Amino acid sequence: MVHNIAILGASGYTGAELVRLIATHPAMRIVALSGDRKAGMQMAEVFPHLRHLDLPELVRIEDIDFAQVDLAFCALPHATSQAVIKGLPSDLKVVDLSADFRLRDPAEYLKWYGKPHEALELQAQAVYGLTEFYRDEIRAARLVAGTGCNAATGQYALRPLIEAGVIDLDEIIIDLKAAVSGAGRSLKENLLHAELSEGYHAYSAGGTHRHLGEFDQEFSRAAGRPVRVQFTPHLIPANRGILATVYVRGQADAIHAALAARYDAEPFLTVLPMGELPSTRHIRGSNFVHIGVMADRIPGRVIVVAVLDNLTKGSSGQALQNANLMLGLDETTGLMLAPVFP
Amino acid sequence: MVHNIAILGASGYTGAELVRLIATHPAMRIVALSGDRKAGMQMAEVFPHLRHLDLPELVRIEDIDFAQVDLAFCALPHATSQAVIKGLPSDLKVVDLSADFRLRDPAEYLKWYGKPHEALELQAQAVYGLTEFYRDEIRAARLVAGTGCNAATGQYALRPLIEAGVIDLDEIIIDLKAAVSGAGRSLKENLLHAELSEGYHAYSAGGTHRHLGEFDQEFSRAAGRPVRVQFTPHLIPANRGILATVYVRGQADAIHAALAARYDAEPFLTVLPMGELPSTRHIRGSNFVHIGVMADRIPGRVIVVAVLDNLTKGSSGQALQNANLMLGLDETTGLMLAPVFP
Amino acid sequence: MVHNIAILGASGYTGAELVRLIATHPAMRIVALSGDRKAGMQMAEVFPHLRHLDLPELVRIEDIDFAQVDLAFCALPHATSQAVIKGLPSDLKVVDLSADFRLRDPAEYLKWYGKPHEALELQAQAVYGLTEFYRDEIRAARLVAGTGCNAATGQYALRPLIEAGVIDLDEIIIDLKAAVSGAGRSLKENLLHAELSEGYHAYSAGGTHRHLGEFDQEFSRAAGRPVRVQFTPHLIPANRGILATVYVRGQADAIHAALAARYDAEPFLTVLPMGELPSTRHIRGSNFVHIGVMADRIPGRVIVVAVLDNLTKGSSGQALQNANLMLGLDETTGLMLAPVFP
Amino acid sequence: MVHNIAILGASGYTGAELVRLIATHPAMRIVALSGDRKAGMQMAEVFPHLRHLDLPELVRIEDIDFAQVDLAFCALPHATSQAVIKGLPSDLKVVDLSADFRLRDPAEYLKWYGKPHEALELQAQAVYGLTEFYRDEIRAARLVAGTGCNAATGQYALRPLIEAGVIDLDEIIIDLKAAVSGAGRSLKENLLHAELSEGYHAYSAGGTHRHLGEFDQEFSRAAGRPVRVQFTPHLIPANRGILATVYVRGQADAIHAALAARYDAEPFLTVLPMGELPSTRHIRGSNFVHIGVMADRIPGRVIVVAVLDNLTKGSSGQALQNANLMLGLDETTGLMLAPVFP
Repeated sequence: MVHNIAILGASGYTGAELVRLIATHPAMRIVALSGDRKAGMQMAEVFPHLRHLDLPELVRIEDIDFAQVDLAFCALPHATSQAVIKGLPSDLKVVDLSADFRLRDPAEYLKWYGKPHEALELQAQAVYGLTEFYRDEIRAARLVAGTGCNAATGQYALRPLIEAGVIDLDEIIIDLKAAVSGAGRSLKENLLHAELSEGYHAYSAGGTHRHLGEFDQEFSRAAGRPVRVQFTPHLIPANRGILATVYVRGQADAIHAALAARYDAEPFLTVLPMGELPSTRHIRGSNFVHIGVMADRIPGRVIVVAVLDNLTKGSSGQALQNANLMLGLDETTGLMLAPVFP
Repeated sequence: MVHNIAILGASGYTGAELVRLIATHPAMRIVALSGDRKAGMQMAEVFPHLRHLDLPELVRIEDIDFAQVDLAFCALPHATSQAVIKGLPSDLKVVDLSADFRLRDPAEYLKWYGKPHEALELQAQAVYGLTEFYRDEIRAARLVAGTGCNAATGQYALRPLIEAGVIDLDEIIIDLKAAVSGAGRSLKENLLHAELSEGYHAYSAGGTHRHLGEFDQEFSRAAGRPVRVQFTPHLIPANRGILATVYVRGQADAIHAALAARYDAEPFLTVLPMGELPSTRHIRGSNFVHIGVMADRIPGRVIVVAVLDNLTKGSSGQALQNANLMLGLDETTGLMLAPVFP
Repeated sequence: MVHNIAILGASGYTGAELVRLIATHPAMRIVALSGDRKAGMQMAEVFPHLRHLDLPELVRIEDIDFAQVDLAFCALPHATSQAVIKGLPSDLKVVDLSADFRLRDPAEYLKWYGKPHEALELQAQAVYGLTEFYRDEIRAARLVAGTGCNAATGQYALRPLIEAGVIDLDEIIIDLKAAVSGAGRSLKENLLHAELSEGYHAYSAGGTHRHLGEFDQEFSRAAGRPVRVQFTPHLIPANRGILATVYVRGQADAIHAALAARYDAEPFLTVLPMGELPSTRHIRGSNFVHIGVMADRIPGRVIVVAVLDNLTKGSSGQALQNANLMLGLDETTGLMLAPVFP
Repeated sequence: MVHNIAILGASGYTGAELVRLIATHPAMRIVALSGDRKAGMQMAEVFPHLRHLDLPELVRIEDIDFAQVDLAFCALPHATSQAVIKGLPSDLKVVDLSADFRLRDPAEYLKWYGKPHEALELQAQAVYGLTEFYRDEIRAARLVAGTGCNAATGQYALRPLIEAGVIDLDEIIIDLKAAVSGAGRSLKENLLHAELSEGYHAYSAGGTHRHLGEFDQEFSRAAGRPVRVQFTPHLIPANRGILATVYVRGQADAIHAALAARYDAEPFLTVLPMGELPSTRHIRGSNFVHIGVMADRIPGRVIVVAVLDNLTKGSSGQALQNANLMLGLDETTGLMLAPVFP
């Protein structure tokens, strides 16, 4: 059985990545693509790399007949998503890639996004989309909120450690290195090749990055008490990839064991042998996550390093994995593409 | 039915690319991998991006039981291939990715590769692997010689024009821009990131690049008379991609029409609308070729620009396409992966 | 004696490059900087890499007291330059980096820039700024028009050959590879790191690039009869650098000799030994030009390859070299900075 | 007065960077260049970007007449330096760029470099070359040991804080991001463009990086008691630059004030306004260091971020600054070159 798929907001990088992945998915068919400012255009005009595909024309959302759609991916900007999803048929399955439904507490949403949430009922239904930790809820969900790409990376490194109680919860530092496609296709000076290609720097430092809302929510939930981490993201001259170097306190063996045990059966998560650390070059274009653990020379100090592709496992690949679950498919369907190296 | 595949020389970039592609191929299974200097290692140690796959250990070629193998890809260095393939069972289907069997005339081989050919009987059987022009021969072949990646790019732009007689055969210039993975994983100073990343230059210029042997052979064959082109390759600070800017004399409309007609039914070749030119960013990681045509302001002068991914359509993707044909499969099987952008 | 310098339009890349070069110039002092949209800002806010310098605040042009200025560099956008320079004191020496005064014939200006020239009297006074070919005129000029960066590169390769009569004037092809900083700091999708870093392509092909106006003008002047070249620029994933591969017909020895003789005494131009070709990595950040010559295997065909840094010799370095001449200084003053490699 | 300079080991990146800087130094003249494996070659053959300079031929060290040399830079590999410097005239001023004389305690040398030190008398004379902290000793020194490039970056961020007693000495983490030229021109697989350009990763993690020997020595000396930091370097796809994100405990205001006060009079060190963080793009090719301070949302946690160019301030620029002092010159001579951006 082939499921009919709509992608709302198909003219950004995460929309394009969804199309790329669904192009070889055996049980999904794209029946509608929206892109408000580009309505009337062919996808091949917006993304010539997709020109070999037979895709519907970009339309406005209101011109989509959702009666024929089984599941919609919503890759719209933050805040726009709320308004749009409110207007969709209430029985339509939706995977949202924006930040709109990630934070359960409206007060947290207001704090991190600077305006009141305007779809509180939907928020109450939404399931947080970190597949490996909410699989059952996602399977039953009508609305799944895709995680932040940085938030996913940090959680893959840390969540099993918090659950297993093998690290000091008050001494967690996440130093993250993010490639530039995570910033989307927006026209900003610091995203120009001439500015970025030989330059790198910290951004949204000092505890101001919005993904901290997700860290706070999820780590506190996992720990059963408030947990607040220190988080410094850096922009790196590469296109795809996130590498999180996480500084924790505990015993390296216990930390490695907790990760290995927790992810042993996971199809996309690999814990490397103790002392081996991952590189972004080995997960590019794929849904895989590599995690390494290494003890420091200072006793009791350990680093955990996690890498993933921000557009795949950090965003559109995760969304597809969740959609597979929501549609009753094997969650790996269409996602076993090997990384592209070099 | 699933075919058993061996990859000889699996520890280089083209070997890794074959594994990447076959990983999601529904009718092939990798049963043997060789890598002489790395025999005894797991593929995941050599190429950590392939660690999610269940692959056989790297072994020496002589330790492979070819009785169980349906087809072997030979991704060994030039000259080594000849010796190895001579020693394989004579009924084993082989797709060779080296330069060893590309040139039909042993004198040409000697001229371009500087030593006598040592497997002349095999050479006599070999079919030149430019799929779209030798499809029937490849289907029936026992040994297919993969083309040079630059040679493929130039031929896709030019061959239909020569066949259709719409260009001046004595006025062809190919100015080619090649990404660095085409040079393989060899340790050379000019392939270091620090040397290359902000530097680009012509190499093997002046009519010395070995792929000229293929151009001479194939263009002359297509024309029915000797054709010699001027060819200048350049090394570009990118990982994957070849862009050939081909300068020809003729009428743009006739040129565009000849390409469009010739490639109309081809699954991997797209001729862009007249006046639109392709970019390497739109074919990365895929088996697709984009070709554009534009008239110059000088009457009678036209450029044809072709792009492909050197590791996929220029090498391992082409090899897989040919293997599909040799095994009686649909030639696109496992090759419809969309390009990875950004 | 120290000369007082103003830079109009200091908030773009060429403005910043002028400041970088003048920072260590022993006979110039920057007394005024303009940047209309950034008036009131410190240069260090716009360009933090210049924060060690004691520079005047950015102001609006009308707030500059030109009585104290000995020479003004005008790094404003095309078309804006005309209007601004018309309003400057008529005895102020001006080096303009825009395209506004490059084309002597107003009809050519209209053709290439799409609107009538609005400062025809100034145009009549302007000297074309290719230093090595207009040195005496520049020394005496009040207004010098900086050349296009691509136009400079092509001319360095070709002009001596045209003057010496050693090539076929009707068979010239310039295939040029330009780094991205030549496009300036403008916010365009195709200049984003995510789009460009692994992508390259031809642009303004087919005889539409505006620098062809300069080629036509200058080559025809040098030849004493109309010369029209075929010119295809490509955008390359690097920050600085232009490499022009020029296809000509003639004898390699005569071509090499003509270049070597013409540039023998030039401080910034180097002709490499016959058969050696240059790389952009060896001129980055400097005012130097490297030129190589190589015969093709086809008799009578030769390539000439020239490289320079588009922001230095292609623009701001050239401007400073011309300013030195206009102020009676040694033209190399402040310009002997060695290239930055790696 | 012009001083005669020899550069031993001129065929590596730091040697080339010394030549670049000295090329415009008004009081130094290069009279000898050594490069054992390249003896007999011209510098322009090894480094074509230096071809405009009139330089002595590369020779073997034993063929240099040191009687005419005022100061030698020794840019040889670790361990080789010791043996070579032992053989130089004992009154020759030497700036060594290797690791050989950085560690005062021979036991520490043995621990970090894995073999006994073989020039203990020279070690006893050597001054650690972090200019801003050993200026007087350097001025009087015969032998100065250049610091590690990573070690310099971390110390610029931390030393004033340790001296001022404004941070917790037991809670220091240095997460460092280093560009690839720091690895030199060595032929290693992970330095290839194809491997690195879209890949980044931690290396020498877990307290194994040799620059920890310098951190231990210098921080303990500054603190007057043992200090051990946690240090994780990462390799980033860029050519030049080091960015150290330093996690400390203390009050941001006191930390910012300590840095600002300590570096107020330093010509090459800039402390950015509170809350502003630096980027590697703004110091490329220069001797400048930019340092920023930002409080975290967690009270008492602060990040200090320092950037410098590994080949300039991290190595050859530092060496030249020290040489200026040793020769009685103003220490900024020849070093005020502005950063190259973009």
